[in-house]
Amino acid sequence: MELKLAFIGFGSVARAFARMFAERQSNLELEYGLRCRTTAIATANHGCITSTIGIDLVEAASSVERGANLSLIPNTVVLSDPISVINNCDADILFEVTPLNAIDGEPATTHIRTALARGLHVVTANKGPIAFAYSDLKAVAAEADLSFHFEGTVMDGAPVFNLVQTCLPGVRVLGFSGILNSTTNLILSGMESGHSFEESLAEARRRGIAEANADHDIDGWDAAVKAVALANVLMDADARPIDVVRQGIRNVTVEDLDGATRSGKAIRLVARGKRSSGGVTLTVTPEPVPLNSPLGCARGTTNVLIIETDLMGEIAVVEDEPGIDQTAYALLSDLIRIRQHL
Amino acid sequence: MELKLAFIGFGSVARAFARMFAERQSNLELEYGLRCRTTAIATANHGCITSTIGIDLVEAASSVERGANLSLIPNTVVLSDPISVINNCDADILFEVTPLNAIDGEPATTHIRTALARGLHVVTANKGPIAFAYSDLKAVAAEADLSFHFEGTVMDGAPVFNLVQTCLPGVRVLGFSGILNSTTNLILSGMESGHSFEESLAEARRRGIAEANADHDIDGWDAAVKAVALANVLMDADARPIDVVRQGIRNVTVEDLDGATRSGKAIRLVARGKRSSGGVTLTVTPEPVPLNSPLGCARGTTNVLIIETDLMGEIAVVEDEPGIDQTAYALLSDLIRIRQHL
Repeated sequence: MELKLAFIGFGSVARAFARMFAERQSNLELEYGLRCRTTAIATANHGCITSTIGIDLVEAASSVERGANLSLIPNTVVLSDPISVINNCDADILFEVTPLNAIDGEPATTHIRTALARGLHVVTANKGPIAFAYSDLKAVAAEADLSFHFEGTVMDGAPVFNLVQTCLPGVRVLGFSGILNSTTNLILSGMESGHSFEESLAEARRRGIAEANADHDIDGWDAAVKAVALANVLMDADARPIDVVRQGIRNVTVEDLDGATRSGKAIRLVARGKRSSGGVTLTVTPEPVPLNSPLGCARGTTNVLIIETDLMGEIAVVEDEPGIDQTAYALLSDLIRIRQHL
Repeated sequence: MELKLAFIGFGSVARAFARMFAERQSNLELEYGLRCRTTAIATANHGCITSTIGIDLVEAASSVERGANLSLIPNTVVLSDPISVINNCDADILFEVTPLNAIDGEPATTHIRTALARGLHVVTANKGPIAFAYSDLKAVAAEADLSFHFEGTVMDGAPVFNLVQTCLPGVRVLGFSGILNSTTNLILSGMESGHSFEESLAEARRRGIAEANADHDIDGWDAAVKAVALANVLMDADARPIDVVRQGIRNVTVEDLDGATRSGKAIRLVARGKRSSGGVTLTVTPEPVPLNSPLGCARGTTNVLIIETDLMGEIAVVEDEPGIDQTAYALLSDLIRIRQHL
C-alpha cells in the first residue's frame, strides 16, 4: 500500500523530515510496509503545488532553501493557497506543520478541519489546534474513523501523548510539571553560567532555537500553549491558553539565579497542571527547584515532563538536548502509527 | 468476552495485583471491556488449585497472608504442582510471577514454555526467562500467535519495553545506562546521608525492598539480569547474565561517597549496554556520576533508564520511589494490552 502525503507548511521541521524519511526509506518499507508519495506542498512564501506523479521531497526542500518557488518543479499544478491545496490534492494524510498562532490557533485548525472533512488522516506538530480545538477535532476524527496524531506538539518526538495513551492504560493522570520551552531554559542556563540575559538569548538565536522575535517564548506563551495541550489531551480539561496563570522569565535576574544556586536550587520556567475542584489549574512560572531533581538538572535545550498518576506514582520523561531532528522524528512516528493502524 | 486467568506464583506482587484489579474492576470493564475470572493459582507453600467457577482473588490473597492453604477455598480442585496446574487449568492467560532464579531462569522458563504450548497468552514479571530464553520464547509465542508480555521485569510498571516498541517506531537503540536495582540505590543513598552500609541495608529490609538475603542485589546480579533483559529485547543481543562485566557495591566506602559528593558527584550502581563490534557489551559497576544528572539525582528506590537512540538522541525515563503497586500495575497494563489485542 502506498500512502499519499500532503504538507501544509514546509519549514525546517518538514524539511528535516523529508531528509530523515529519504535516508530510511528502504528500511521503513521493509519493517513497516511504509511506502509514500508526496502529492502536495503548500507554503506561505514559496508557492503551493500538487502533483499526481509525486514530488521529490528532498528536491523540494533544497528548492525552498535556495529561495526558489515550488512551481518551478516539473509536472506540478500551481494552486493559490493552502485551503485550495487541501481541497484539491489527492492525498491520504495531511501534515499540518505551519507555525504556531498562539492567539487562536488559526489557520491551522481550519486546515485540519478541512482535511478531516475530506477524509484525510492528520498529523500535526502545531500545538495551536490542540490548545484551541482539541475536543472538537478529536470528535470529528473519531466520527470519520480517521487518525489524528500530534506527538510533536510537546517535547518533540519524545513520547508524551503516546506514552500515556498506549503505555499507561487504565492510569489516571492527576497532574504534571515540566520544562517544556527550550529557549527560556537555554537563557536561564546561560545566565547561571555567568552570561547576561541578552547574551544568552543571542546564543539561543545563533543555535536556531529562538526565533528573531522570542517574546512568545520569554513571556511563557509557548509553555502555556503546551501546558494546555497536555491538559486537554491527558486530563480532558478543555482549557485555553488564556486560562493559564502565566509569568515569563523577563524579571529573573542573575542575582536571583546566583541566590538559588547557593541554596542548591535552580530557577526554571515550570509548567504545571493539577486537578482541582474547578477542573484543571494551569500555571507557567519561573520557580526555584532542587538542582538535584529531574527539573533542576535539565539544562540547555533539555525538556522534562513529570506525570503524576494514580496507579504509577510519578513518572518522568527527559529529552536530552533535542534539535530539529527530534521534532522531525515526531512526524515520522505519527506516520508509522497510521500505517500500523491501517 | 471473559478472560480466564491462571497464576503461577502468588507472592506480594500478585496479591497487590489482586487488590488493584478488584478495586478498579468496574472501570476496567467499562473502559476496556476487561472482565476476568481466575481459574487457577499455584504457590510453593500454600497449595495449588484450579476452579471452573472461579476463585475470588482477594479472598485467596487474604488466605495466603493468614498462612492458610488454598485448598481450603471451596469448589476447588487440588493439584500437586505448578506444571500440573498449567497442564490442567482452563485459562486464557498465564501470569508467571514466581521469584527470580538468576542461575538459569528455571522453573519459570519451563512454566512459560508449557503455557505457550497449551495456547495460553503469557504475562510475566519474572526477568529470568527474558534473560535466559527470550529469543526462543518470543519465537514460540509468535508462531502460535500468542501474546507474551513482561513490562514488569525492568523498572516495574514504568514503560520501558512498551515505550520502545510502541512509542519509538523506526528507532534503533544504540545503548542504555540505568539505575535498575532499588536495594543498592537505597544503600548508597543511605550511606551518603551518613549511615553505615549495614544500617542502610537494614532500612531497605525494613521497607520490604531487600530480601533477607540481599547478596543477589548487593553483588549486582539483579541489575545484571535486568541489563541482559534490556539488551535481549531492545538490542537483539541474545546475551546471558554471565556475559555481564559485573561488580557489586560491597567495596564502596563512606569515604568514597563523601569524596564523590565533594566533587559534585554521586556513586551509583550503573548498568550499561553498548553496541560494539562483537555484539553488545554489558556492564554493571559502581561509578561516579554527576549529581546534577538524571542518574545522579536518583535517590532511594528511584529507578532511571536512559536510552540512547539513532533518531531521538537520549531519552530518559524516571520512576520516582516505586513500591509494590508499581510492579502490580505492570501485570495490569500487560493484561489490558492483551485484551486490546484480542
